[in-house]
Amino acid sequence: MPSYYAVIFTSVKKENISEYDSMARLMEKLAQQQSGYKHHESAREQIGITVSYWDSLEAIDQWKQQVDHQMAQRLGKSDWYEWYRVRICKVEREYSFGKE
Amino acid sequence: MPSYYAVIFTSVKKENISEYDSMARLMEKLAQQQSGYKHHESAREQIGITVSYWDSLEAIDQWKQQVDHQMAQRLGKSDWYEWYRVRICKVEREYSFGKE
Repeated sequence: MPSYYAVIFTSVKKENISEYDSMARLMEKLAQQQSGYKHHESAREQIGITVSYWDSLEAIDQWKQQVDHQMAQRLGKSDWYEWYRVRICKVEREYSFGKE
Repeated sequence: MPSYYAVIFTSVKKENISEYDSMARLMEKLAQQQSGYKHHESAREQIGITVSYWDSLEAIDQWKQQVDHQMAQRLGKSDWYEWYRVRICKVEREYSFGKE
């Protein structure tokens, strides 16, 4: 298996954030244009979990530094999130069942 | 940071699985009794994402081999899931904002 990385982003949003969904979609589109981006998966109930997958730690760093993403990070702290946590992980092994 | 591991479990369920929720709760309780279990987070929309956190790869292996969990894994394949994927990851670094 070629090595790759997962970024686990868990969060709880504030109430009634009207611009959140459009900004989240924009960030998804921009992430997909980044070098080293593989794909992502997302679900939200009480807690939101987004896992994005990347070729390298360098690709993750570059996305963190991307200009529009930096603006979103500032808005995230000031306006959108009660809290969030980011965990950067190396995928050591994996297995699956059925067809994704 | 003491090293620890994340198990990212992504899945799509079949429709109308009446016993799923009670079995999922039972598995959560049993996992919490395992040596090396830290905590877990879960959300489901189109896709379900559960991330559990563990002290070591050995603790993850032991949970995979646990007898009731093995039965759940068999039922998962035969009855519950369209597909699932398990990724076992080493948490390399993390940061957070606000109070979890």
